[in-house]
Amino acid sequence: MTVEKTALLYEGKAKLVYTTTDEDVVWIEYKNSATAFNGEKKADITGKGRLNNEITSLLFSMLHEAGVENHFLERKSETEQIVRKVDIIPLEVVVRNITAGSMAKRLGIEEGIPIQEPVVEFYYKDDSLGDPLITEDHIEILKLATPAEVDMLKHVARKVNAILSKFFASKDLRLVDFKLEFGKTNEGKIILADEVSPDTCRLWDIATNEKLDKDVFRRNLGSLTDAYEKILERIGGEQHV
Amino acid sequence: MTVEKTALLYEGKAKLVYTTTDEDVVWIEYKNSATAFNGEKKADITGKGRLNNEITSLLFSMLHEAGVENHFLERKSETEQIVRKVDIIPLEVVVRNITAGSMAKRLGIEEGIPIQEPVVEFYYKDDSLGDPLITEDHIEILKLATPAEVDMLKHVARKVNAILSKFFASKDLRLVDFKLEFGKTNEGKIILADEVSPDTCRLWDIATNEKLDKDVFRRNLGSLTDAYEKILERIGGEQHV
Repeated sequence: MTVEKTALLYEGKAKLVYTTTDEDVVWIEYKNSATAFNGEKKADITGKGRLNNEITSLLFSMLHEAGVENHFLERKSETEQIVRKVDIIPLEVVVRNITAGSMAKRLGIEEGIPIQEPVVEFYYKDDSLGDPLITEDHIEILKLATPAEVDMLKHVARKVNAILSKFFASKDLRLVDFKLEFGKTNEGKIILADEVSPDTCRLWDIATNEKLDKDVFRRNLGSLTDAYEKILERIGGEQHV
Repeated sequence: MTVEKTALLYEGKAKLVYTTTDEDVVWIEYKNSATAFNGEKKADITGKGRLNNEITSLLFSMLHEAGVENHFLERKSETEQIVRKVDIIPLEVVVRNITAGSMAKRLGIEEGIPIQEPVVEFYYKDDSLGDPLITEDHIEILKLATPAEVDMLKHVARKVNAILSKFFASKDLRLVDFKLEFGKTNEGKIILADEVSPDTCRLWDIATNEKLDKDVFRRNLGSLTDAYEKILERIGGEQHV
């Protein structure tokens, strides 16, 4: 696809987004920054942008082939990709297979306990409010999505979970939990957007439970890029540029 | 009902609970203490115990007549009542008709906006965790109630809301939101328990929106007992001891 990036549209914590010569396409550049705890912890980590760009590109291509429509179009360079332009719905859709992170903390339970039926949670994407957990009723009050759209988001989230869990298991990785974001296209269709990477998934080695995701950064467990390199190698090292 | 209180079973923030000569009955004494913000704000307010005991007794009797089974048996004195012994389910079931309090804060919206369809929320009763909002999936993970029981809790909560909203409206009071707790009897039946009072309901004057509930204490808006006296007078002053 031959588009050129034109102007900076938006700078997020982990990405730069540019308009392109095609109004339905935006150009994304993955930054080397790592942030956690609502931006309270920050670092610049050389190589992180490339790893997330490559991993997300592989996973979105795979999801596309598995029938999950998403915004990804093409990887453009080590740190860049083009995607369909969407209006992001300010919801973080979190799927959990194993207790961990904020849910374990909220409920006062241990991490690492398998959850019988995968759980879908919604968080309101609003930094000033600290991205709070919200209920489906709250989504209606905030007019973020209709009840039918919420059902669709949950359905797609569960489908993505089934596909990714099976895929990662075949690479000796346990998909503990992950966060999805969705956006509306110009035609009003809701599709999967944002990224799927070790920044947005918890991935543990299936044998050792070694953490190979952003918790390495959050909890100071070692080299983040070493962990992300392991993920990239396992899921498709040969496609590495 | 002739039962005698025997031993102190439990001291809560607002009540003392005693065993009685009947093993299926407990004796409750309402204290004069007011607490807010998970116990961070405290005060001793003369007359509060009497007011909450009288108001709860009136409202539980009324709910009983309206077909909502609950633990209330009989008022025993100005500050005491006897109730059926239940094991409290550690869930706060909150019903909201108008935006206010923690929901307005969580969602970053104004207070006082009517909610189209009353909202039911669940909070996990655990002081050490700060009584967090939880989802129905979390209730299952914590094994606090089965999905069928959760449906029943929501159904009863909505029924109580319909009854109380109509009742309070007839007394020129707006029922903004309220919190219910439920318990299991010795036979395993779930019934409404705890209390229904200006400590657990937000009640605004229908014409002026004057707050006549615990927000008077939380937000230092004047005399708490003056507010609670107004509620008691409006809902049945003639039954005053």
